[in-house]
Amino acid sequence: MGGDVGPAVVVPGVALAASRMRGRDVRFLLHGDGARIEAELARCPDARAVSEVRHTDQVIASDAKPAQVLRRSKGTSLYNAIEAIRAGQAKAAVSAGNTGALMAVGKLILRTIDGLDRPAIAARWPTSRGYTVVLDVGANVTSDAAQLVDFAIMGEAFHRAVYGTARPTVGLLNVGSEDIKGHEEVREAHKLLRQGGLDLDYRGFVEGDGLAKGTTDVVVTDGFTGNIALKTAEGMARFFGALLRETLTSDLQAKIGAAIATPALRRMRARIDPATVNGGPLLGLNGLVVKSHGGADAKGFANAIRVAADLAFSDFHAEVDRNMQRLSAVLDAAEASTPVEASAQAC
Amino acid sequence: MGGDVGPAVVVPGVALAASRMRGRDVRFLLHGDGARIEAELARCPDARAVSEVRHTDQVIASDAKPAQVLRRSKGTSLYNAIEAIRAGQAKAAVSAGNTGALMAVGKLILRTIDGLDRPAIAARWPTSRGYTVVLDVGANVTSDAAQLVDFAIMGEAFHRAVYGTARPTVGLLNVGSEDIKGHEEVREAHKLLRQGGLDLDYRGFVEGDGLAKGTTDVVVTDGFTGNIALKTAEGMARFFGALLRETLTSDLQAKIGAAIATPALRRMRARIDPATVNGGPLLGLNGLVVKSHGGADAKGFANAIRVAADLAFSDFHAEVDRNMQRLSAVLDAAEASTPVEASAQAC
Repeated sequence: MGGDVGPAVVVPGVALAASRMRGRDVRFLLHGDGARIEAELARCPDARAVSEVRHTDQVIASDAKPAQVLRRSKGTSLYNAIEAIRAGQAKAAVSAGNTGALMAVGKLILRTIDGLDRPAIAARWPTSRGYTVVLDVGANVTSDAAQLVDFAIMGEAFHRAVYGTARPTVGLLNVGSEDIKGHEEVREAHKLLRQGGLDLDYRGFVEGDGLAKGTTDVVVTDGFTGNIALKTAEGMARFFGALLRETLTSDLQAKIGAAIATPALRRMRARIDPATVNGGPLLGLNGLVVKSHGGADAKGFANAIRVAADLAFSDFHAEVDRNMQRLSAVLDAAEASTPVEASAQAC
Repeated sequence: MGGDVGPAVVVPGVALAASRMRGRDVRFLLHGDGARIEAELARCPDARAVSEVRHTDQVIASDAKPAQVLRRSKGTSLYNAIEAIRAGQAKAAVSAGNTGALMAVGKLILRTIDGLDRPAIAARWPTSRGYTVVLDVGANVTSDAAQLVDFAIMGEAFHRAVYGTARPTVGLLNVGSEDIKGHEEVREAHKLLRQGGLDLDYRGFVEGDGLAKGTTDVVVTDGFTGNIALKTAEGMARFFGALLRETLTSDLQAKIGAAIATPALRRMRARIDPATVNGGPLLGLNGLVVKSHGGADAKGFANAIRVAADLAFSDFHAEVDRNMQRLSAVLDAAEASTPVEASAQAC
């Protein structure tokens, strides 16, 4: 597994993940600056016991332009981590590198799974009922109806792999709940998902406030809307955190009250700690690649590793394949039943 | 001014708004069930002194389908409130009725302003630096580049009218800050706004977390994304509110701490009270129409009235007209400079 945030986070993250996954046979390839990694491993015997170092001094700059990435990626830690999957040496890669580079190199080396146009990045979201998986949150800028259905299939299998939900519910993000709401892509995807034929529990449209409510286990949207919704929610979380801190330190009386309520406030903070949901998988590649947030700490990196391991030990790819085949049958049937006039219009 | 939430909210709202706007000559036409309105006015002498009742017993059902609205709107309180603007009897209408109906009747009676395709609904957003205006939050499902620029023009004038900001900053909501990010509409709008020619302070792309940060005073987006961002933020606000309540009542110690911190917590609640930002104007009509949230209380309704009055006493329409004319010059110049090949492709 590769990481670019630096061994100071990755190595303790590996140690933490390994200690939480005792009983599972999980081992690590650490791609990067060998000397720095060894120095960290010397301080972390738990990590050393399960790790092998793969030295490289090449890295992809975090601000590299998309066009530069592919030309300059070979031999970098990010490239090597993904190449190890193709070579059968690793089951998954975890990286805190540039998301665009990770996607570009992932597609180059692993290719997308059969029948799928575009991979998606999934995010996890703490809600009042548990965790919601939202995708796409930024791999694509636009998505047509069939791609949205692909995301539904992958998000559903991902929720099961990570949270063990037997039958996750799926919703489509929209501006209202009636069938006539939204733009063409979202209405067409709604029709396809409604039609049945897929093995998933589709519940219809979900509005923006459904994300925090946890209206469905999986919320599907295009990468533009998903990215903005995710960042809007992150911004709101920071705003509330700052406001609460300011409130509870605004005068002596507030400080005393806060000191007394500290244990409860700490439990609350743990519940909404972004580290808990760190680790956004790039779904739709022939191999498991998980993006860790650039600012994640060791606990956050350990959670990203956990996501990769949960996916690796699950039936994720087989389940996605089965539903992709069902979708292809649904799409074929839809095409076969298109009235002649409509076909003529399309010409 | 019309209201459909019932006189029990509207009349005290009028009283509150009138007391806050002493010195301004503001009077009210109250459209609706005359007997119920009179009964409320009897309890609110402050409201009675500035109000005139216009009885009607017809209302538009809040769940009316768009197709039914126009056919059945004539003579309803919502219709009469907007018709009073056209007839020169009122400067603005405030309503808690169905947003779709308000927009449909508003367009029917008032028409859109010259040069503008589509009106937009603006929302106000409390941020760590003040208030951000976001539009469109749901009047349109898709928006092309020129429409996004229209929204920028209207949002900028609106921020000045309501908050007195001499020169509000304007941003365009996107998934990244580089010029190449986002879909075609947003990149094209960015180019138009960058080009200059308009009298506004455009600052480039803003990401989702910029909404809570208050990165710019105005954030422009299409109605689909804006609606989802707004509802995501509202959902997050409710989630945090519920989580904080749960935390501070989770055990005796937390309750004691919370009791001591009560004054500070109350100030915090007042700061993020949704009533503060109630009142979403329908911008782009030849007349001022403000939507009040269906669940708003008297304080919220008074804030919606305040928005209507601020707009009515401002140079909003003249400022928008001036920038719309500048935009039309910019668009003409862009068209004139289009290379021949591009024109040929368009045919």
